[in-house]
Order: sequence, then C-alpha cells, then structure tokens
Amino acid sequence: MKALVLQEKKKLAVQDIDLDEHLGSDDVRIQIKHVGICGSDVHYYLHGRIGDFVVEKPMVLGHEASGIVVEAGRNVTHLHVGDRVCMEPGIPTAGSAATFSGLYNLDPAVKFWATPPVHGCMRETVVHPAAFTFKLPDAVSLEEGALVEPVAIGVYSAATAGIQPGDTALVFGAGTMGIVTTLAALASGCSHVILADVKKKKLQLVRQNFPGNITCVESSPAAVHEAVFSRVPEGVDIVFEASGSPQVTSTFVSYLRPNGRAVMIGMPQGPAPFDVVAAQVKEIRILHIFRYRNVYPRTIKLIASGTLKVKPLITHFFDFAEVLAAFQFASTMPEDAIKTMVRM
Amino acid sequence: MKALVLQEKKKLAVQDIDLDEHLGSDDVRIQIKHVGICGSDVHYYLHGRIGDFVVEKPMVLGHEASGIVVEAGRNVTHLHVGDRVCMEPGIPTAGSAATFSGLYNLDPAVKFWATPPVHGCMRETVVHPAAFTFKLPDAVSLEEGALVEPVAIGVYSAATAGIQPGDTALVFGAGTMGIVTTLAALASGCSHVILADVKKKKLQLVRQNFPGNITCVESSPAAVHEAVFSRVPEGVDIVFEASGSPQVTSTFVSYLRPNGRAVMIGMPQGPAPFDVVAAQVKEIRILHIFRYRNVYPRTIKLIASGTLKVKPLITHFFDFAEVLAAFQFASTMPEDAIKTMVRM
Amino acid sequence: MKALVLQEKKKLAVQDIDLDEHLGSDDVRIQIKHVGICGSDVHYYLHGRIGDFVVEKPMVLGHEASGIVVEAGRNVTHLHVGDRVCMEPGIPTAGSAATFSGLYNLDPAVKFWATPPVHGCMRETVVHPAAFTFKLPDAVSLEEGALVEPVAIGVYSAATAGIQPGDTALVFGAGTMGIVTTLAALASGCSHVILADVKKKKLQLVRQNFPGNITCVESSPAAVHEAVFSRVPEGVDIVFEASGSPQVTSTFVSYLRPNGRAVMIGMPQGPAPFDVVAAQVKEIRILHIFRYRNVYPRTIKLIASGTLKVKPLITHFFDFAEVLAAFQFASTMPEDAIKTMVRM
Amino acid sequence: MKALVLQEKKKLAVQDIDLDEHLGSDDVRIQIKHVGICGSDVHYYLHGRIGDFVVEKPMVLGHEASGIVVEAGRNVTHLHVGDRVCMEPGIPTAGSAATFSGLYNLDPAVKFWATPPVHGCMRETVVHPAAFTFKLPDAVSLEEGALVEPVAIGVYSAATAGIQPGDTALVFGAGTMGIVTTLAALASGCSHVILADVKKKKLQLVRQNFPGNITCVESSPAAVHEAVFSRVPEGVDIVFEASGSPQVTSTFVSYLRPNGRAVMIGMPQGPAPFDVVAAQVKEIRILHIFRYRNVYPRTIKLIASGTLKVKPLITHFFDFAEVLAAFQFASTMPEDAIKTMVRM
Repeated sequence: MKALVLQEKKKLAVQDIDLDEHLGSDDVRIQIKHVGICGSDVHYYLHGRIGDFVVEKPMVLGHEASGIVVEAGRNVTHLHVGDRVCMEPGIPTAGSAATFSGLYNLDPAVKFWATPPVHGCMRETVVHPAAFTFKLPDAVSLEEGALVEPVAIGVYSAATAGIQPGDTALVFGAGTMGIVTTLAALASGCSHVILADVKKKKLQLVRQNFPGNITCVESSPAAVHEAVFSRVPEGVDIVFEASGSPQVTSTFVSYLRPNGRAVMIGMPQGPAPFDVVAAQVKEIRILHIFRYRNVYPRTIKLIASGTLKVKPLITHFFDFAEVLAAFQFASTMPEDAIKTMVRM
Repeated sequence: MKALVLQEKKKLAVQDIDLDEHLGSDDVRIQIKHVGICGSDVHYYLHGRIGDFVVEKPMVLGHEASGIVVEAGRNVTHLHVGDRVCMEPGIPTAGSAATFSGLYNLDPAVKFWATPPVHGCMRETVVHPAAFTFKLPDAVSLEEGALVEPVAIGVYSAATAGIQPGDTALVFGAGTMGIVTTLAALASGCSHVILADVKKKKLQLVRQNFPGNITCVESSPAAVHEAVFSRVPEGVDIVFEASGSPQVTSTFVSYLRPNGRAVMIGMPQGPAPFDVVAAQVKEIRILHIFRYRNVYPRTIKLIASGTLKVKPLITHFFDFAEVLAAFQFASTMPEDAIKTMVRM
Repeated sequence: MKALVLQEKKKLAVQDIDLDEHLGSDDVRIQIKHVGICGSDVHYYLHGRIGDFVVEKPMVLGHEASGIVVEAGRNVTHLHVGDRVCMEPGIPTAGSAATFSGLYNLDPAVKFWATPPVHGCMRETVVHPAAFTFKLPDAVSLEEGALVEPVAIGVYSAATAGIQPGDTALVFGAGTMGIVTTLAALASGCSHVILADVKKKKLQLVRQNFPGNITCVESSPAAVHEAVFSRVPEGVDIVFEASGSPQVTSTFVSYLRPNGRAVMIGMPQGPAPFDVVAAQVKEIRILHIFRYRNVYPRTIKLIASGTLKVKPLITHFFDFAEVLAAFQFASTMPEDAIKTMVRM
Repeated sequence: MKALVLQEKKKLAVQDIDLDEHLGSDDVRIQIKHVGICGSDVHYYLHGRIGDFVVEKPMVLGHEASGIVVEAGRNVTHLHVGDRVCMEPGIPTAGSAATFSGLYNLDPAVKFWATPPVHGCMRETVVHPAAFTFKLPDAVSLEEGALVEPVAIGVYSAATAGIQPGDTALVFGAGTMGIVTTLAALASGCSHVILADVKKKKLQLVRQNFPGNITCVESSPAAVHEAVFSRVPEGVDIVFEASGSPQVTSTFVSYLRPNGRAVMIGMPQGPAPFDVVAAQVKEIRILHIFRYRNVYPRTIKLIASGTLKVKPLITHFFDFAEVLAAFQFASTMPEDAIKTMVRM
C-alpha cells in the first residue's frame, strides 16, 4: 500500500510499503480518510527525533486520523464494515499493571502511532484494536473525526483541572494545544478564558475563528497581569500551561487565586526555575498530564452535540497527492495556520 | 415601609411594617427591585408551614431578589451606593464551626429569608451583610439578578456532581429546580441532558424556551428507559433527582452506568424504599445537597458570559401593586409557567 | 486432583476431578496451601444459590487462598517456582471497557472463583493469571496470605471512605466484614471505631482479640446513640454498613456528622425505606462498593508491616481431611468464631 | 505580666509587659503552661526577620502552647474555667471571603502569634478566640498539648496527600517537620516511610525514639535510590518534601511512581530548577501547603488514642526561668535535639 514514509531526518517520500498486517479477532481494518499533521510529525521530519525517541529506520508518519471500517475481527460487536470511525493512536498492553490500575496511558509498553519504531497512519489502511476505534455519530464528519485526537488532549486537560462551573482560566500558548484546551475549558464550565501568546497573528486567528468568552492577550507579564486582575481580582482559578516556555513555567503561579490549580501541557526543553514558596502561600496544586486516557467517547459526544465547535481548527486542506507540499507548509510553522489536514 | 406580609396561613397582605433595621459596619442597605416567587413562598402561603418551620407570627415573604445599594457600612469596600446587586438569602454565623470548616450552608444557626421566624425581602429595603451581597456586572439585568438564587441551586448541583466533560445526565422533574439543573449541567460540561417529567405542558415549555441538547421525555419507566439506553447503552453518567417523587428515588439507580453518581435535590414527603444491592453492583455514589454555598459569584459569571441563558425562566411578570394576584396565580401551580417575577 | 465439590444444595464431597487446566504464557500454576471458608461458600452449600447465581452443575468451593508457585508461564517475570503467593479470585477480561476505564471489578464478564459456574480453589492446584497472583513477603505467613481476600474488602472500604486522619467511624455488623473493616479503618487513619452488633458473643470476641481504640456496643438505637454522641457530639465522620440489616440502612444517617459519608458493604435481602431529606439536611455522601480492585498489594503491605494484625481473625483450623466437618461447623454460624481456615 | 520579648535581632529578654487584653464575649483567657520553641522563633531571634516579616518593635515570641482556661466570655459554651487546652495560633477574620470559602488559613488578614507585629504566647496569660481553643482530653498531657501545633502540620500534610491505605512515602528532611510528617503519614495509612536526611545524628535520634516502619537513610541520591527502588520497584506513592533543599525540590520526581504525588512542606530560600517533562511522563501531582486548617481536633484525637505517639519529640525541657538558656541551646541547632519545651 501507499504510505508517507520518513526515511530519515528531512527525507520524506510517498512510497509503497508492505506491512502485512494480520487482523486479530479483536481488531478492525480501517481505510484511512483524513489525517491531521501534528507538530510531532513535523518535528520528526525536521529533526529525526524527539528526546529519546529516534527514527532509526523508515517510519510512516501521522497519528490524527479518521477512516472507514473495511473488515472486522470475529469478536468485534460494536463496529461493522462501513462504519465511519476515528482511532486512539496509543495502544497499551491489555493485561499490564498500568491498565489494571486505570492508568493505561502510563503503560511503559504503549505503542503510539508515529513514535519510533511504531508506524503511523498516513497510509491506505491500518489494523487497529476495536477497543481503541470509535464510531463517529452522523453529526460528526470525517474531517472532524481526524480532529478528535488533538481535541482529546484539550478535553483531558479540562477534565484533569476539575473545573467548577463559572471558573476563569488562563491558557498560555495559542498553538493547537492551547486553542483546543481553551475550547475544552469553555465547554467544561469555564465562564471565561484568557488566552496568552507572543504571536499576534495566532491571537488574531483565534479572535476570528472562535468568538465568545475568550480574551486574547499578548503574553508580556504586564499585559497578562492586567488582563487577569482587571477581570478576576483574586486571580484565575486555573492555569493551563500549553506554551512550553520556561518563562511561563517559572511565573504562572502569580496569576492564580489562592488554592488555584495548574495543568501542565506544554513540554519545555529543560528544567526552569520554580519558586516553591510562592506556590505554598497560595496552596497551589500542580497537575501534570501525559497524552490522555478514556476521553475519546467524551470528545466525540461534545463535538456531536455542538458544544465543541472544532471545524474552524482546520485552516488548510491538502490532498494526499500533495502531502509533501503539506509538510513543507507545516514545517514553516505558519502563524496563520492552526491545523493542516490531509485527505487520503 | 411597605411589605408583603403573611399573617397566617392563606392570609396575605401588603402592609406597612416597621422593621427598624440597623446598618452594621459590614452591612449594606438595599432597595429591592425584583423578587421571584418561589415554591416555598407559595407553600408557606397555602399551608403556613414547611416541615418543622411554622409561621407563628407575621412574616414578610420572598427570598429571590435583586436591588440597588442605597447605603453602605463603613467597613464595606467592594460595594458602593448605586451598585446593582443580588443577595444570598441565607446568613450563617461568621464564627461558627460550620463556617470555619467550609460548610457555612450547614450551620444550624443560618438565618434564611422567609423561613420562620426570619423576614423575607418582599419589601422596600433590606439590610444585608455585604459578604452575601454581590454586584451584578453590566451584562446581567436586575431581572436576571433575581434569578441568581434559584439558578444557584442548579449550579451547586452541577458542581457537586463532579461533571466530566461529555457526560450525559438524566434529570427527573421539570419544575424550576429541574430546569435550572438541566441548564447548569449543560453549562458545566454535559453534552446532553434527558429531562423527565409527568407533566407534558412543562416539557413543552422547556422545548420552546431552551432548545439544544435537551431530550424531554414523559417520565414513565418505559419511556425513560428507552430515552436513556438508546442514547447511552451503558447508562447515564449522572442522575439529578429534582422531582421529589418516591417512585423516582426508588428506581433511579437502574438508569446509571457503573460508577455513576446521583445528586439528590428534590425533597420527598417521606422515606421511600431503596435497593442497596442494586447500587452496590454498580458502585453508585449518592450525593445529597442542602441549598448551596460559595456559588453566587460563579452563577453570576455564567449568566454574564451568556453560558447560562436564564431569561426564558421568567414566564410571568407582575408589579408589586398586583402581588396578591401574583400569589393567586402562582398558587394554582400553572403548568405553563416557570418563574413568576414581581417588580418592586 | 482432589477437590471439595458442591454437587448440589447440601451435597458436598471431596472427590477427584479432572480440570485439565492449560498454563498460558501469562499464568502461573499454584499448589494451594490454605483456604478460608467464606460466608458465601456456606451459603452456596446451604442454599445452592446466591441471588441469580445458581449452582447448576458440580462446582469446587473456596476463594480465599494462599499457595506456592509450582510452574510459571514463559512471559511471567515477577513470580518464580517456589514463591509463596496469594491470589485475587476475580479475573476480569483484560481488554474490556471496564478494565480500560479503571473499574475492572465492575466488568460484567469477571470470572470469580466459586461463583457459578466458575470453580473455586479448594483443590490441589489452580492455574491463575500472574497479574492476579501476589508474592507474599517473608513477614506474611501462608495462613495470613489466605486472609488477604477478606481483609482486602475492609481495605477497599476504608480506601473508598476517604478517611481523614483522626476520623471517628461507626461500623455496623461484627461479622468478618465488619471486623476487617474496623481494622482497616484504624489502620487508615481513624482514631477510633465504634462497632455495633446485636450479637454479644461476637463483640466479646472482638474485645478479646482486637484491643485498642474499638468501642463495642450492642446495636440498639439507644445504645448506639449514646456511644456515638457521648464521644463525638457532632456525629461520626463515617458509617461503614456491614450488617446488611434493613433497620440499619434506614437509620444510619442519624449518627453522621454534617457532610459525613457512608460506605455500604452489607447486602440487605431487599429494599428498605430511606429518608432522603434526612440525608439532605446533612449533605451526606453514600458510597456503594462491589468487591474491590487494586487493593491486594496494599493489603499485603499493611499485613507485612504489622499495621494490620490479622492473625487473630483465624479462630478455627481444620485439615483438608476434615473439610466436611469444617463446613458443618461453619454452617452453624457459631458466634464464637470469626474465620475458619482449612489447611490443604 | 512577665513575657519573653524579642526587642530586636539577638536581643531577647524576660520582662514585664502591659498588654491590657480585653476579653470578648467569644474569647477565653488562658494561663500558659507549656510552650515549645519553634525554628521560626529561633530565626526571628537570630535574624530579626523571616522574608517580608520584620521585627520592627518588641514582640513576644512563641506560638506552640498549652494552658488552662482562667476566664471565659459570656457566649463561650464548650470551654470552662479550669479546662486544660491548646490553642491554634493563627486567627483568621471570621467574616472574610477566605473563611467563607473554607480556606481560613489563606486569609491574608490572619493574625499569627509571634509573626510581626503580632505578639506570641511566651507570657503568663493570653486572650484567644474560643473557636481556636481546644480542650485536651484526659489522655493528653499539657506537654503533649504544646506539641499539637507542630504535629498539626504533619497531620495536615498527611491529609493533603490523600494517603491510600498501604502507601509507601518518602520524607525528605528529619527536622521536626519531617519527623511529625513521618509519624502522621504512618498514622494515616502508610505502611512504610523512608526518611532521608543529610544529618546522621538526626536519623539516629529517629531510630532510637520512633521505632517501627521507618527506614532512615542518608540523603545522597544513590542511597535514596537504593532505599526506594529495592523496596518499591515502581517508586513511592508519595513524597513529603520537608527539607527545603533546592537539590531535593529539583529531583524528588524521580522517586515517585506513575501518578504519584508530592506535598511541599519545606520552604527553600529561592527558586530551584524543576523539570516539567519528568513530572509529565509520570502524571505527577504536586500539592503545596501553607500552615494548616481544621486539623487541631483531628490531631488531638490521634494523640489521645495513642495512634500518634508524640512524647518522644520533646528531647529537652527548660523552666521559664531558664528560657534565655533554652534559646541559646536551640540556636545552636543541636543535632541531638528535636523539640525544646519551656515550662511556664
């Protein structure tokens, strides 16, 4: 089958590969229809690695996908041929200690699409466990289905935050993660979100595409301070850190109300100074997350009900024939783009 | 000053009373502008009592109110003369054990407006602790301000439920409590609410006034079963019991998913059979609530942001000159009314 | 191999059976050393059924066991031949939705030893998933290992209760469940437990075997009231209901402090009246549990550290040669016995 | 009355002062009997300040105290003349927003004994709010009563950690905070605590005075690593950081199991590097605390029941006549001392 293969750093090609995937009794085979390009795909393309994960042999990219079931294993009852579906890309070991303890995303043996050496899904078909394949309701398009993966991170962040109705949140970073978290926070009970970024164009894009209860602010300390304390004099209830900026991880506590909490989504390059005493005098709780667990069905329901309006996230479409151009485009980190989507 | 006084059961009159209220240094004096008529006001009017609370001497009715600050005590800093405000009607003892432990609504010494022997607020002015008086933002009208009290119960119910984004809830009872809980559940992250009541007209009223993600269903066991399991085969995540019906409190567990939870809002007349084993095999958690605490600011923010659209709750307006007619109307429990509001 | 087989109601025999158990790559084979007799074993023996679970063909009894590993599947790394172990008797489906959501004990497909039609462990050897087989540290004897199963219910009850250090608990029922819950509550931070039962001899047995911070009280309303309110005037923080008595499930709320919580362990025969309003005015939280999950390692650690002293639970020992006598004894529900243990 | 007054840095004297304390209707007057010397007392003595709190005029030291009620305000019902009591030294504003929201310890207006400019309790009598004065049961001596304050920090830390029964904890710092946290963690359900410090003598003191389920380890990375992973291969469930060492706050995450949590008690001098990504891949939760709230009654119950054995904390006694010598002694930070207690 045809696939988008990263052979090594900066060497990307559409080529025929022979994966010879066996369909287990609890699996489905899916024809891939849409795949979003994630920052991690671009990062592997440009650098050949993310941290300790190194591309050492050719690997298919892509992990944000929707498709159509073309074959179902004999034990599969909740999916049928022809079903429109999206897929959770991280597959834990079913019988692992992490799984039995309810933390399958922390299973050290998780196989995650397009994380070396596991192939991703920018190809014609994949075989996937039915337990991690979710039927899309009529109200959710295949394009939206391919957005479930990034949006799930926002929903998991919001769920982790323990939002109380009427909370005010401050989100750092207006990249895809920051935007989906903003939307999820509003859908989960926040009355207002202040979204801070250094990039004016990103904020402009948010203002145009996602009106309502979002205050966009350029992330200088003075501007964020003004945006926060003019609105909520006691400080915000929640900070969502989605910038990965060491300056932010060193200072976010100052914007929180007493007993506020922070959810750490962005991944800084290295350690940054943190002031424990500043967090103590406010009794701040800091919650770190890693990918997500058990949020695909929730995310799909929120999209289907219209509570989460995610279509405007897709700012650019490419056909698979132009997938190399799509990666070229995405590699420039264009400030007027959010999600680049490939039609397979 | 003029006030609406319940002299005894079924004897209601607008009359001059002399309350001689002293303004303490932490108090404000408020000119009352709008007061909603609550089921409890009607109940005291018709029966002269609710449970152990008996009207033994003349009492001013009303506890759902908004108004304008006309005088402020010398320690008050967050309110000024002219501010538009709403008031939390239950005043705990500041130094009580319940208050220090964070449960001020459970303080046995709470003084609650229009709960004998405490006078309510259907009168020209009241003196109230500034700590329980909340400024309305520009986006919240005085009419909406008088709705904050009943809506706060819905917000507190939703907050107690620990809603996870995308949850499906089942609300029993389409009275004011059931409707505000439905709205609050949707505003707090539920993707869908199934609202069940025996009264067709009430459901019709909800359909007309509150479109979007609410399924109204007549509450026969068969109809509720179909509405729930056709939508969520594993059962709903949350039941909000706002009907007070013993039939409901005996059977709601059957609609819940494993590890689901129920919030008990409605107050049944007496004990009803409950099947502990049915709740055990699903590990159900049952959360009982009493009024609310710490939710006024949240409720106001959700109304101000448009997340909670509460105006359609007011189906009937009366001027204070017609307040006796308003009570006559409310006493018939009209099925085509939700909230009856009095302009003072 | 030899096994204790319940052929039908009241027909119990030690006989040779051929179970032909295949050792999977993730399994271990265990030589059984000690098995405790549980109330459910006795109930199946006397009545041939528990609720919907009916003994329709011969079934081996027993589910509280310890043993020694005699063979290990090729994927098993944490256990070796010769290891002393105890076994969690309920085996969920590894890839089930309940398991991935962290609620494996609520998996409808759980196979639980000695629950029809699943054979129990009163036999020479069993094959069991290594993931549900736990090595006993040197400090835990094989006799104590066979107690881990019932003690785990107490530990799970205590964990569910969310005990805060210094809490006072009231436990109803001084059967094995009530006693292990009492011990677990004290080990989990309760400063004091009031244990109520109608049987004087049971209380006497507790007084003798488990001194320290337990007040035993005969469970008349007057006596419990006196025991509770003379000690904690605001009411107890937690009720553990382990009696299964409808009188208790109808009245326990009266002993709780405001915002207290109840854990429902005992399984009453049918529905009993419950007063919702009484629970509302105190904002009581009621938590229902079903067996346990993820508590075997915790229970073993608490026994190994001496925090949980469980040996006195074993009041009577029988050799397997006398197992029929052991069941005769246990069937009389002797008030001077807690746990009857069989040496295999 | 006679009092121990810090006139300025390093100038300490017993002198007569005239405080002229008025007894309010909700207050009690207490004759002070025992006062422990806290690290903060010593710090004010040596440096004249802690952070922004500067001793600008003479201040009585001491905040860990027990005593006897000698006069009670007319509203006081739960205390009587002659009662043996201990006192919570931080007095919030009764009607503050922090108090109503259940976070009285975070009230910015809290008046805390011996924190400038508030006088402490090393004097003959104090007037104190009855709501913050707690009767000692017969089983708790006045010496132990003066220990309730420091022990309360340990109990609050343990309560904040959300200990599950059988958890293993790692405590950094074997000063008074670390030791009381160790004891509280064990009393709250931990099966084992690993206590790390750089000072051998401190660990020796712990070994001698607090036997049972505590592993003392010198806090080099290698030694802590060995102590943790040889015992709990997945890592500890909880870290209590009570050392205030930047090296510890930068590295503690490595000892935690996935989804573990840390409670930050020690107050480092300044910011230290923190690795967000290391915490993310394990989904670590970090909980910061400030003093305590609502734990005095719990702490007293745990001491009264013998669950918390705190007497060995007092390693040195001084009479008030020798209080200057006591401060000289405490100022040397002797490694063979835990708590120095002054008899008034």
